[in-house]
Amino acid sequence: MLNFRNDYSAGAHPAVLEALCRTNLELTPGYGLDPYCEQAAETVRGLCGCPEAAVHFLVGGTQANKAAIGAFLRPYEAVIAASTAHICAHETGAIEHNGHKIIHLPAPDGKLTPELIRSAAAAHTGEHTVLPRLVYISNTTELGTVYGRGELRSLRAVCDELELLLYCDGARLGSAMDAGHTVFSDYGETCDAFTVGGTKNGLLFGEALVIVSPALRHGFRHCMKQQGAILAKGRLLGVQFSAVLKDGLYLTLAARANALARRLAQGLEELGIPLLVPAASNQLFPILPAAAAAELEKHAAFEIQEQLEGDRVCIRFVTAWNTADQDVADLLAVLKTLPER
Amino acid sequence: MLNFRNDYSAGAHPAVLEALCRTNLELTPGYGLDPYCEQAAETVRGLCGCPEAAVHFLVGGTQANKAAIGAFLRPYEAVIAASTAHICAHETGAIEHNGHKIIHLPAPDGKLTPELIRSAAAAHTGEHTVLPRLVYISNTTELGTVYGRGELRSLRAVCDELELLLYCDGARLGSAMDAGHTVFSDYGETCDAFTVGGTKNGLLFGEALVIVSPALRHGFRHCMKQQGAILAKGRLLGVQFSAVLKDGLYLTLAARANALARRLAQGLEELGIPLLVPAASNQLFPILPAAAAAELEKHAAFEIQEQLEGDRVCIRFVTAWNTADQDVADLLAVLKTLPER
Amino acid sequence: MLNFRNDYSAGAHPAVLEALCRTNLELTPGYGLDPYCEQAAETVRGLCGCPEAAVHFLVGGTQANKAAIGAFLRPYEAVIAASTAHICAHETGAIEHNGHKIIHLPAPDGKLTPELIRSAAAAHTGEHTVLPRLVYISNTTELGTVYGRGELRSLRAVCDELELLLYCDGARLGSAMDAGHTVFSDYGETCDAFTVGGTKNGLLFGEALVIVSPALRHGFRHCMKQQGAILAKGRLLGVQFSAVLKDGLYLTLAARANALARRLAQGLEELGIPLLVPAASNQLFPILPAAAAAELEKHAAFEIQEQLEGDRVCIRFVTAWNTADQDVADLLAVLKTLPER
Amino acid sequence: MLNFRNDYSAGAHPAVLEALCRTNLELTPGYGLDPYCEQAAETVRGLCGCPEAAVHFLVGGTQANKAAIGAFLRPYEAVIAASTAHICAHETGAIEHNGHKIIHLPAPDGKLTPELIRSAAAAHTGEHTVLPRLVYISNTTELGTVYGRGELRSLRAVCDELELLLYCDGARLGSAMDAGHTVFSDYGETCDAFTVGGTKNGLLFGEALVIVSPALRHGFRHCMKQQGAILAKGRLLGVQFSAVLKDGLYLTLAARANALARRLAQGLEELGIPLLVPAASNQLFPILPAAAAAELEKHAAFEIQEQLEGDRVCIRFVTAWNTADQDVADLLAVLKTLPER
Repeated sequence: MLNFRNDYSAGAHPAVLEALCRTNLELTPGYGLDPYCEQAAETVRGLCGCPEAAVHFLVGGTQANKAAIGAFLRPYEAVIAASTAHICAHETGAIEHNGHKIIHLPAPDGKLTPELIRSAAAAHTGEHTVLPRLVYISNTTELGTVYGRGELRSLRAVCDELELLLYCDGARLGSAMDAGHTVFSDYGETCDAFTVGGTKNGLLFGEALVIVSPALRHGFRHCMKQQGAILAKGRLLGVQFSAVLKDGLYLTLAARANALARRLAQGLEELGIPLLVPAASNQLFPILPAAAAAELEKHAAFEIQEQLEGDRVCIRFVTAWNTADQDVADLLAVLKTLPER
Repeated sequence: MLNFRNDYSAGAHPAVLEALCRTNLELTPGYGLDPYCEQAAETVRGLCGCPEAAVHFLVGGTQANKAAIGAFLRPYEAVIAASTAHICAHETGAIEHNGHKIIHLPAPDGKLTPELIRSAAAAHTGEHTVLPRLVYISNTTELGTVYGRGELRSLRAVCDELELLLYCDGARLGSAMDAGHTVFSDYGETCDAFTVGGTKNGLLFGEALVIVSPALRHGFRHCMKQQGAILAKGRLLGVQFSAVLKDGLYLTLAARANALARRLAQGLEELGIPLLVPAASNQLFPILPAAAAAELEKHAAFEIQEQLEGDRVCIRFVTAWNTADQDVADLLAVLKTLPER
Repeated sequence: MLNFRNDYSAGAHPAVLEALCRTNLELTPGYGLDPYCEQAAETVRGLCGCPEAAVHFLVGGTQANKAAIGAFLRPYEAVIAASTAHICAHETGAIEHNGHKIIHLPAPDGKLTPELIRSAAAAHTGEHTVLPRLVYISNTTELGTVYGRGELRSLRAVCDELELLLYCDGARLGSAMDAGHTVFSDYGETCDAFTVGGTKNGLLFGEALVIVSPALRHGFRHCMKQQGAILAKGRLLGVQFSAVLKDGLYLTLAARANALARRLAQGLEELGIPLLVPAASNQLFPILPAAAAAELEKHAAFEIQEQLEGDRVCIRFVTAWNTADQDVADLLAVLKTLPER
Repeated sequence: MLNFRNDYSAGAHPAVLEALCRTNLELTPGYGLDPYCEQAAETVRGLCGCPEAAVHFLVGGTQANKAAIGAFLRPYEAVIAASTAHICAHETGAIEHNGHKIIHLPAPDGKLTPELIRSAAAAHTGEHTVLPRLVYISNTTELGTVYGRGELRSLRAVCDELELLLYCDGARLGSAMDAGHTVFSDYGETCDAFTVGGTKNGLLFGEALVIVSPALRHGFRHCMKQQGAILAKGRLLGVQFSAVLKDGLYLTLAARANALARRLAQGLEELGIPLLVPAASNQLFPILPAAAAAELEKHAAFEIQEQLEGDRVCIRFVTAWNTADQDVADLLAVLKTLPER
């Protein structure tokens, strides 16, 4: 069975696993207060060009979003997000569980724009509505689209204008940087806080949260602990991040996933299979007749994104650092054989 | 200055105030555990045809919605509501503050339909999204539109089908009953819980929450107290509700407000002033050129509902039991004089 | 039946009710944005010597405590309180419902001391415990004891030393001022925020929250609304507070309640009935044999405070502005006849 | 430097790491919906004698306690726990952050008794207090003491009597079973839910939550996700638990830690060093003069438990599966040389 289900089906990149094995029996203080985490944090600070940033390592993305956003907002402050955003659609109301409303904005390509943000701010004034305070973006987005440097700067500008915080969920930040030609320091320059995702790019698990704005740093480890988000053997996160951030492995892995997706997208185009949004990173959203999708499920694992009108279905293919070249070729071969695709 | 700002600008109907004065120096147990509350609750149960319903008296509508919905849902369960719903737009995220997401549905006339509800349910499946569990409607709606008996029954049917609770915010229930030809027992039959609004219909303050479903009754007074929603001198609520529920005063007052609004709507029509939605109850939403609205503000108090394209503005006129006949005539006279209306 | 159950068994003082009746049909903006609230707030600011303080009017004490403390704290910050404090023992976990731990301290007379506060602070250090941030006192306390000026200043000093906020629940502030020879401005000087209770001292309902510290004022009306704590006809609170704050009525009523309690305490002493804590304000806690208490219940309404060893029971007598002189005499007469008291 | 700081200073037992390495590049579904988790869950169910129990795997103990207790309680329901309990003292108010009060009970040895539980229940009646609903115990306790089978059954009986849930935090369940001669099925018989801790007994991380009571199972994965407590590569938990539950390794490791602690305790006794509570499992709490403790810190890592009167300090030694025999001998040798111990 070919696997294009997601980019977290396998374990860790061998270099990461090797680092975990090598350090396994060392004895270090717990809770992330160890030299490995300190070194990884320092590396992240260096890459981002934020020598004063607070860097925290958390196990997962929902956990990181929930802990961060919960720490940053006062009770009546709200989040602005695209309605396809992970926090809107895939985290079982984790942000609302912390007490904060998310203002959902329609964005067909999954990307917020200054105009959308301004409209949300304009629609929420006075004491009887929540106060928009934080703009949540994900890069890459949940539709695989990508913000480039100019877009990040435009979002920063509108956030400055409206006194909003800018938070970037970087669960797939490596893929976003490769695809959109951004670098770590672009996020350090434009975001109040952002995550560097490890789970989907070579780690067993782990997201690094970079808190750039001084005003947001205070008390965050208390918040993490209260959320159940401090790992006892915290060094496991530091060890893993150090391994992928060394020698550019983080970007190498992401570039490989993107390259495989480009090859797959080209094949899809040649087969005349349309996409929901243009291919941009390691997630593709082809549209197939329902019967073809059903047939395809016998050969490949993938997610159903959305039922469409006219008995069609939008599915999702995801490539990862560990996807084999041959798997892409095999998937295209299967697709070629599908009826009425 | 004419006042069409809202239906809570004045104090209480004289009969209500008289009852408060008459009983003022009596000594009763606190927290709503007094004979006046018991009698009012019994009256409500009788009117609703729900001899077993739990009836609680709360001070305000946001408080009632927050306490009730918070008590009824498990942490990951969500509310389905029209995006114009009071809990979506005018309660500063009170429901989310309790941890629950509201799924906003677009409804140009402020009313939910079985189709809208089904679409929301279909879009929220699996463990990574909230679980829709409670349908919130308001009758009358925030746009003054009204659900009739058939519509309530259709909503009940879809709720049964999808295992959803039906909750009706009756802040203006008197107006809804008068305008839509429903009676208290229609709500007892179709809703799992609903409120009977007093603040906007003759009381100083007060909403009666009727919990019809036995499964939702347990522990509610604990929830009320925890929410700060038990009034120390609780009898004030029982005394007031008894006063308006006696001799049909509650409906008489609502009917008067509706009749005044009908007269006003007829006048608006004669003046060729369009409405955002057809007139149905005691809230009207005329659309005026911005300049005309600005001029009108010199003569009358009203709310701005929404800025529209083409330099127009939708405003809101509200009539109440205490609106004078002459005020309607005077408002129409002023409107007649407005430039380019 | 004699009534010594509590100080909120009756309605409002006649002067308060008169003011409500006089203004009943006036039309004013809602939500406390009316001239009556503004005037009452100005009066409170003047009395407290805090011309810049924010003054908000809320319906009840639990609501005020919940809204205020919830607004003032970050998620991991905790409250320090005596274990007899209202927020610990009588508000159904309202503070914890907002997410904040209360650190309960044993205080036999219901009063916190700098030593107790220091011990609590010393016991909560590091990221794995909550961070003590707000000291909650009530004056009078739930045991009727009273903080004087010197004690308030000592608490302020320890709060400054430990970077803690000082919050005083003044549900019975009038009684505390009369009994402890403090004045409004003592609270303005020493507290970051405090309430002036109306419900138990002449109003139908109402607590004024005075936020002295500038840092705590921001966004509070958003928090109030989110908590369901903004009254639609907010002027009812302003009208009532103005009525009792005029001509010193607030203190006159409290002084009367205290004087009646002193007379009752003297009678209890003459009868040899011991008290749980020395008499200080309008709440007394006599200790009776269980049989005597049971007999007493046939003649008078009162609360049971606590079952004690040796088949004894501590009960509570409360006097109020509306308690009749004769009722005190009658209660003492009944007590004299009790068996084995 | 000798390390007796805690039982989570190292990584995983080699057998666990080997299993992770062996399965590293396999592709499985995410979120714990994989064969490894299913197999581990089945093994746990078998061991506990609860073929119908729900078994969920979480990353850490605070996360497990927070997700479980939050899912089990209604808003006004409270937890009963010893004041030394992990949820009281070491989780930064995680339970209160979910909205629930913890009723702290003094228990010098860290263990609850039926009498303590009954007293807490008796002190919380009526609508103005929280409703005690769940009894939290940890086995072993935070003081290293242990509940045996008879005690668990007594707690079950009082919980049945008072309609309370019994929850056991088994962060050190292996140690508790070895020390107290209990087996997995004792917990299946007596608890409504309990955890089997992996982090402190051979895993990199992981706690298995066993929900025995059918009424508590519904919707738990929604709650987990909402809490950020579902691991993307969930199989990592299943793989690890399977590795330690195979061939009794889980108990072997715990027994080794306990045996080392017994040897250490014997040495302490021979040196005349008193303990705060009698030695029972892998945590020991010796009391030393402050100067001796300061000297010891030059040779060994350990935690300070508590400053005591008389310039003494209670410290904590923890042994683990990976503690070397020689380390115990060396620690005792150092202790022997300390001044005025």
